[in-house]
Amino acid sequence: MAIFKQLAPLVDDIQQALQKSVKKEFPVSLREPILYFLDSPGKKIRPLLTILSCQAVGGTIQAAMPAAVGIELFHDFTLIHDDIMDKDDLRRGRFTVHKKWGEDAAILVGDLLVGLAYEKLLQCDPTHLSRILSLFNETLIKVCEGQALDKEFEKRDHVSPQEYIDMISKKTAWLFKLSTQLGAVLGGGTEEQVAAMARFGDSLGTGFQIQDDWLDYAGEESALGKKVGSDLKLDKKTYVALSYVTLLRDKPELGKRYPLRMSEYRSLQQLKQALIELGIAAEIQARIKGYIEDALQALQQIQPLDESNRLYQMVLSLHGRQS
Amino acid sequence: MAIFKQLAPLVDDIQQALQKSVKKEFPVSLREPILYFLDSPGKKIRPLLTILSCQAVGGTIQAAMPAAVGIELFHDFTLIHDDIMDKDDLRRGRFTVHKKWGEDAAILVGDLLVGLAYEKLLQCDPTHLSRILSLFNETLIKVCEGQALDKEFEKRDHVSPQEYIDMISKKTAWLFKLSTQLGAVLGGGTEEQVAAMARFGDSLGTGFQIQDDWLDYAGEESALGKKVGSDLKLDKKTYVALSYVTLLRDKPELGKRYPLRMSEYRSLQQLKQALIELGIAAEIQARIKGYIEDALQALQQIQPLDESNRLYQMVLSLHGRQS
Repeated sequence: MAIFKQLAPLVDDIQQALQKSVKKEFPVSLREPILYFLDSPGKKIRPLLTILSCQAVGGTIQAAMPAAVGIELFHDFTLIHDDIMDKDDLRRGRFTVHKKWGEDAAILVGDLLVGLAYEKLLQCDPTHLSRILSLFNETLIKVCEGQALDKEFEKRDHVSPQEYIDMISKKTAWLFKLSTQLGAVLGGGTEEQVAAMARFGDSLGTGFQIQDDWLDYAGEESALGKKVGSDLKLDKKTYVALSYVTLLRDKPELGKRYPLRMSEYRSLQQLKQALIELGIAAEIQARIKGYIEDALQALQQIQPLDESNRLYQMVLSLHGRQS
Repeated sequence: MAIFKQLAPLVDDIQQALQKSVKKEFPVSLREPILYFLDSPGKKIRPLLTILSCQAVGGTIQAAMPAAVGIELFHDFTLIHDDIMDKDDLRRGRFTVHKKWGEDAAILVGDLLVGLAYEKLLQCDPTHLSRILSLFNETLIKVCEGQALDKEFEKRDHVSPQEYIDMISKKTAWLFKLSTQLGAVLGGGTEEQVAAMARFGDSLGTGFQIQDDWLDYAGEESALGKKVGSDLKLDKKTYVALSYVTLLRDKPELGKRYPLRMSEYRSLQQLKQALIELGIAAEIQARIKGYIEDALQALQQIQPLDESNRLYQMVLSLHGRQS
């Protein structure tokens, strides 16, 4: 995580700008939960992507900062509303907003964050404003679509891994794509550079989400900030679960030695063992690697992949994470 | 309601544009509830204000339509989220979205509507885009503040009528103001005209909300589409309730003949009688009239208040409504 240590001063600047967007005159029932949420630890991956992408095409931190902050505020909105829908009590090891202040407050806090996000975006260079707002707004719509599909999947009997990838492309990767794309636009990048950075963010986001799913099974509890296997308990349709179920459907003979549903496992240890035996662990890790490599190929069009390339270092660090 | 009959073709156009904003590719769990909600009857007051305000300063229907539709989509978002928070099962005589599809779906549907609203606004004349989006976004923030205050008031012992007016200025009047103001901007109005139309919308919105509160007590059940006195049951702090409680606090001697809390009344009939005896009914009606007159004074700066003035006719009709 050396790169994130190096980026710590920038994260502090982002953190300060985030706090500043919460106005003193806001009613206390909005101010308190927002400041609480903004105060939670986090790598600030998305705003960092925006700023570094802007710099990668020759722009300044200042040019990217309003969009970076707006993107993080938007991300926070999605987390707060998703936590309500997923009935999650904890996030990053702390109580969620709805757990602490109730669902009504959490709905409203999320709504306000959308407004604050747009407010930051409206501070961007007017030359790019129309394009930036269109891309941003498209992302809001796609993220809602992705979340809707995620909830629909919960109620369906079977979902294919490909359908799942389509869903996370909207729910997660779109915002990564927006982060890098807006950075490139605000940095004055050429259309080729903007397209390359968009592909970089998109592939990174997809790989990141599949890895997130994987770490839910393979990660360390303390680092995740929530119970390992928590998604498993809900029989949630993650990429891991869908790969497992699909394999058992396609090869019924395996049903003699492995249960049809992951929730039938008595321990996470047994499940992990099965995932390795069945080749699912290897397949998933290869797939994550594929997305990461695609992301790096796109990034290489902008900057050589060397020690001084902070986006490259970020990707390596994210790919190597255990939480 | 002759004016609303005259405006019916325009309402049809608005209705069609609203439906069109719901894309076929949206997941069914979003499409269905949105189409259901958009299909509900309603006067479409806010988009009509936008279009008529645009025409009042010499603009066309086409110039105002995207903003008008965006404002209505935004209004729908606030209704759907507010209904969750207020635990209302019915709206306009039909089940609310969260009652029919659950709270999670209703949260997400509201979120998507914000995205669809901005999408419409982004279709406005690029010359005005930056100003329009700033005003629109400011409104989103103010409406959230207003709703937060409304919920905070529920938990407080006492709220003054003035605090209540400040709250509805944000929660209700701001969107009325936006409707008329954007219309004037898009119609190419002068700064004086824009300011006059903003004041028109602001005062109309405040008067409209106080009247809405009043009709909750004095209106006819069927027309309201929800139980008369429903706010009373929750001991909700409406303008009527706050005026009552404040009067009883200021004149303790009245406490011998009237209960201290409105919820202690055994029937709505008795309560209405008390509101008349105490002069509250007259005070409220005078206050509504004051706001309406202020709105009309502002409107008069743009158009003479005559038979052909459709905004004027709308105001008269709204002021005379019983539901």
